[in-house]
Amino acid sequence: MDSGLIDKLAGVVGKDGVLTTPEDLAAYSYDGTFAEGAPDVVVLPRSTEQTADVMKLAAETRTPVVARGMGSGLAAGSIPAVAGGMVVSFTRMNRILEIDPRNSTVFTQSGVVTATLQAEVEKLGLFYPPDPSSIKHSTIGGNIACNAGGPRCLKYGVTGNYVLGLTVVLADGRVLRTGGKPIKDVTGYNLNGLFTSSEGTLGLVTEALLRLVARPRHAKTALAEFDSLDNAARAVNEVLAEGIVPASLELMDQTAIACIEEAMHLGLETDVAASLIIETDGADEATVTREAEAAGRICRNVGARTVKVAQTEEERAGLWKARRSISPSLARKAPNKLGEDITVPRSAIPEVVQKIRAISQKHGLPIVIFGHAGDGNLHPNILFDKRDAGQWAKVEEMVREIFAVALAVGGTLSGEHGVGVLKRPYFEQALGPVSVAVQRAVKAALDPLGILNPGKMFA
Amino acid sequence: MDSGLIDKLAGVVGKDGVLTTPEDLAAYSYDGTFAEGAPDVVVLPRSTEQTADVMKLAAETRTPVVARGMGSGLAAGSIPAVAGGMVVSFTRMNRILEIDPRNSTVFTQSGVVTATLQAEVEKLGLFYPPDPSSIKHSTIGGNIACNAGGPRCLKYGVTGNYVLGLTVVLADGRVLRTGGKPIKDVTGYNLNGLFTSSEGTLGLVTEALLRLVARPRHAKTALAEFDSLDNAARAVNEVLAEGIVPASLELMDQTAIACIEEAMHLGLETDVAASLIIETDGADEATVTREAEAAGRICRNVGARTVKVAQTEEERAGLWKARRSISPSLARKAPNKLGEDITVPRSAIPEVVQKIRAISQKHGLPIVIFGHAGDGNLHPNILFDKRDAGQWAKVEEMVREIFAVALAVGGTLSGEHGVGVLKRPYFEQALGPVSVAVQRAVKAALDPLGILNPGKMFA
Repeated sequence: MDSGLIDKLAGVVGKDGVLTTPEDLAAYSYDGTFAEGAPDVVVLPRSTEQTADVMKLAAETRTPVVARGMGSGLAAGSIPAVAGGMVVSFTRMNRILEIDPRNSTVFTQSGVVTATLQAEVEKLGLFYPPDPSSIKHSTIGGNIACNAGGPRCLKYGVTGNYVLGLTVVLADGRVLRTGGKPIKDVTGYNLNGLFTSSEGTLGLVTEALLRLVARPRHAKTALAEFDSLDNAARAVNEVLAEGIVPASLELMDQTAIACIEEAMHLGLETDVAASLIIETDGADEATVTREAEAAGRICRNVGARTVKVAQTEEERAGLWKARRSISPSLARKAPNKLGEDITVPRSAIPEVVQKIRAISQKHGLPIVIFGHAGDGNLHPNILFDKRDAGQWAKVEEMVREIFAVALAVGGTLSGEHGVGVLKRPYFEQALGPVSVAVQRAVKAALDPLGILNPGKMFA
Repeated sequence: MDSGLIDKLAGVVGKDGVLTTPEDLAAYSYDGTFAEGAPDVVVLPRSTEQTADVMKLAAETRTPVVARGMGSGLAAGSIPAVAGGMVVSFTRMNRILEIDPRNSTVFTQSGVVTATLQAEVEKLGLFYPPDPSSIKHSTIGGNIACNAGGPRCLKYGVTGNYVLGLTVVLADGRVLRTGGKPIKDVTGYNLNGLFTSSEGTLGLVTEALLRLVARPRHAKTALAEFDSLDNAARAVNEVLAEGIVPASLELMDQTAIACIEEAMHLGLETDVAASLIIETDGADEATVTREAEAAGRICRNVGARTVKVAQTEEERAGLWKARRSISPSLARKAPNKLGEDITVPRSAIPEVVQKIRAISQKHGLPIVIFGHAGDGNLHPNILFDKRDAGQWAKVEEMVREIFAVALAVGGTLSGEHGVGVLKRPYFEQALGPVSVAVQRAVKAALDPLGILNPGKMFA
């Protein structure tokens, strides 16, 4: 990279805000996947103005720019896909700028870690619901780039449902400000919606105005164990049809349960076909309890073997510990795992789980299935050993087959991880040529030089 | 208009689907505003394929195309703003194509009237929440074009929150299909969000896949009357801060209440400063009642003079009759009314109402204020006599001043009506030049000939 550009970048963000040593660059060449790609330079701005000046330098020199939060992405979206270029890391833009309790909003820089923001607003009795499992190390900016979800999003909606306004540095360095504190706004195109889930390909999100809700004071959690996956899936639909909207409605298949129990010894029955974790929450304890009990009754009516409603906070924590233990417990079964993120119509869950099991059997590698059943968002995790080239080839084929299963039932590639590099080969198959053409046209309109996160999604 | 084009259009949609007589054209030159604009031809397709063929003919001949549902719009968005061209009316595309109870979705042609769709899904225990006051005569397509809201949208969200997928005829006649039945989907840009609220400027929406929820079985409604508007506004915030999310939280100012009482004799106290109508709903009667009573208690605690919780369905219907009577009752006060649709941060409601009253006094024309207080969405209605040119000039100035008040407190031009022609003069003032440039770039990318609803929004 041109040392003149490096000097100019240092002039904008300070010398300590520009990283160029091989060790530093290596640290920014990974995310939560197996992909790798080192930039030529990492820039760490402290403000929207600095980011805009950095972007202007990038545009002048046609340097690719990859936006990055904490690098926890699961689609290789925040590491360079084309040789070299610039990573703009927002880790120094981690200040919460305003919490407004009267309007239930928070205005924040995009580099703040989501769990930090949640903790701060909860001190004031407010609540920022989206809860991706990366919550303790992913940033609001990354969550916006991927429109992150999480278990709680069944009731509360995903990240995009909370974006009231954005500050975006455009591809030529202009600064766009969208939205505002009003909850409803139909003045013009929905630019909040356009930039959310655009994975850094349309602009760099430096600040976000987020909607908050009142913190739920009570929560009640139930575990329902089923001998039949079909019945578990039916229970999901019946609960929702009753007008109960649990905060979470999580599914774990037999493989997932067995993995957890083997690792954690929590006393789960390992011969059940599937379990649901159902959590209700809200302002009124009696209502929350009544809803959890009603959900439990429905599960029993559709054939649950057992239903346990946690009676104490410890029991509740135990159930969530089980759910959260799935991913770590998989490490005991195999050196590597590849977690996918398909979403399907709820009604197709049993068929999809069965077909994914068949893929597992065909290729001889285990697949653990869990996910947000209420949303139809499943995370099939393939367990394997990456050092074995034969296994890696199988994994790639299995991923292809899993996507084919999802698309065949009207599902899609990703519910909350994004497309990035990893799902790019399947993008047109999922969306069709007209959709790809429309997205390319929008991209070309906002990034005519093609310097924003090139090689991602459809580019 | 070229008779060759008329013949070709008739070849696509049939002779009875092409209207050209002056009387027919006149019928399509109005909407819910004072604006007028006749097309050269009205085309009534019966399918997406016909719409695509019509659009191809329009593109070949560079004929402006204005999409129209039932013409109930309140921003002159669905009548031609430039001379002549084509109105494409979707009133013949009024079939519901599929209701899927297992996945809680409905797939519909865009010309179906929203109340019809609601009634059909409610027969199956399902619920489509958005409830614009035009619900009995506006269409799903029009609701999507404007991202329509309504009283119930405080709890349930606006139209855009229910759009899972769209069939869109693009400016060159290609057919784009977006989304699908999965609730979560981050595969690519949020095209559902982009086309929703684009007011027919980016494509013609012919079909929509909409998310449904379980029909709430119970509702409880309370009326709280306040001697101080500040206290009414405080009550709104306190109720929401308690974690109670009413389906509706409607505000009526003293002028609105006086108008209703004068017209309807419902026994409302006309010397109160403001009233709130608060409705809770849900699956569980005890919970719904408890929430309504808690909201009532909060209103009393912040100084409500009286709080009445409707004890019977008749009492409840009476309260809503009052709310729905506002608009018709205004006709007794003046020959004409102009209803605006500003949204402001909730905390600014008292200040905004006060300033709008000052505008009323300054110009000597009454302004009635009511709206969706929980969302900060206010409808100031100016009462006047359009035959009096002096009054009309005042009205235009008053609208300008109302927008200035909204923008000064961080609000915006429209919460649910859209921009259309009427708010176009204020568009850049509201959003700033960068936002306008971004929207123009997106528009040019998807409609390079500028034939989709020209003269609307920012064009």
